[in-house]
Amino acid sequence: MRVSKKQAAENREALLQAANRLFRQRGIDGVGVAEIAYEAGLTHGALYAHFPSKEALAAEAFSHGFAGNMANTKAWAREQDRSFEEHLGGLISTHMRDDWEAGCPMAASASEIGRQGGALSASFTNVFEQFVEMIEGSLENAIPPARKRRLAIAAVAAEIGAIATARAVAKTDSALADEVLEAVREIICAAYKIEKARAE
Amino acid sequence: MRVSKKQAAENREALLQAANRLFRQRGIDGVGVAEIAYEAGLTHGALYAHFPSKEALAAEAFSHGFAGNMANTKAWAREQDRSFEEHLGGLISTHMRDDWEAGCPMAASASEIGRQGGALSASFTNVFEQFVEMIEGSLENAIPPARKRRLAIAAVAAEIGAIATARAVAKTDSALADEVLEAVREIICAAYKIEKARAE
Repeated sequence: MRVSKKQAAENREALLQAANRLFRQRGIDGVGVAEIAYEAGLTHGALYAHFPSKEALAAEAFSHGFAGNMANTKAWAREQDRSFEEHLGGLISTHMRDDWEAGCPMAASASEIGRQGGALSASFTNVFEQFVEMIEGSLENAIPPARKRRLAIAAVAAEIGAIATARAVAKTDSALADEVLEAVREIICAAYKIEKARAE
Repeated sequence: MRVSKKQAAENREALLQAANRLFRQRGIDGVGVAEIAYEAGLTHGALYAHFPSKEALAAEAFSHGFAGNMANTKAWAREQDRSFEEHLGGLISTHMRDDWEAGCPMAASASEIGRQGGALSASFTNVFEQFVEMIEGSLENAIPPARKRRLAIAAVAAEIGAIATARAVAKTDSALADEVLEAVREIICAAYKIEKARAE
């Protein structure tokens, strides 16, 4: 059966969306390609016509899912000039913790990526750098660029730890899950205060 | 075949060690029970004689593996009175990042635990609390207990994020992988400085 260009693009999009949703919910090793194809309403063969391997699909799904999060965050930041603290409040939140599908894809799979191949690491790194750049943009101008970058790197890595840890303890101790988020926000804000004082 | 009590205990230990090693290397969803039994030199049936389910085995393997890390850390801390900064230097290190088998089991599986059942969450939470308690013990006495706990919670969650993130980017950008560790150590130390200054 011949597939039109338009249909092929739609199939590709459906595969990326299904992969992204399933990987965030169940992890990369927790989902097979047959299931992703089924979820997208396509055959196994159709999937391999678009992606040579599960890893290639996972790497592209990761970037694709993140692009959606990034677009939402940028739209939110455009509504008004958002401070660094407001960014943290949005990122390290009970909402992000409880919504696996719409939450941060890095937090959803951080501990799995290192075990996967180079394509997923490259995709994760690219997404991490984009996020760091966005956070840098929310920091006080007076802070020197190298210090901005350093703080943004720490904030994103700590956010990933906060969300993953809060999710891991949530079924057992919901008060602790909340406290993890607050505690991590606090240390990042404390470090920011020191950077601002230094730059003045 | 009748198995002596001593043999049963040895089999159980072999299963826990094999599970712990394989889960850290490949993730909980990346390893099957048949493989764990094989690695321990036992049959599938022998595994189920000790653990009713993969989750039960994973939960116990998690605590068991952590107990080993904890014993090592406590032995190291007993050699001399280790400061909070020394603990951080050991925990958030290239050594911990590069050694999956001996590294922190929480960092190795943080983003996977939230997807698993209650037994693994309970095991993770228990381990997290033990770790927090150890870190609290390394903080300056003058800091009020509630603030010590808050800082220790943040430090452990941020450590988990630092190691998982550094591993995720390491195949692509080893300089960034190092910088993630340094940046996270820096913000935790900055927050500690503020707590110490407040307590004086």
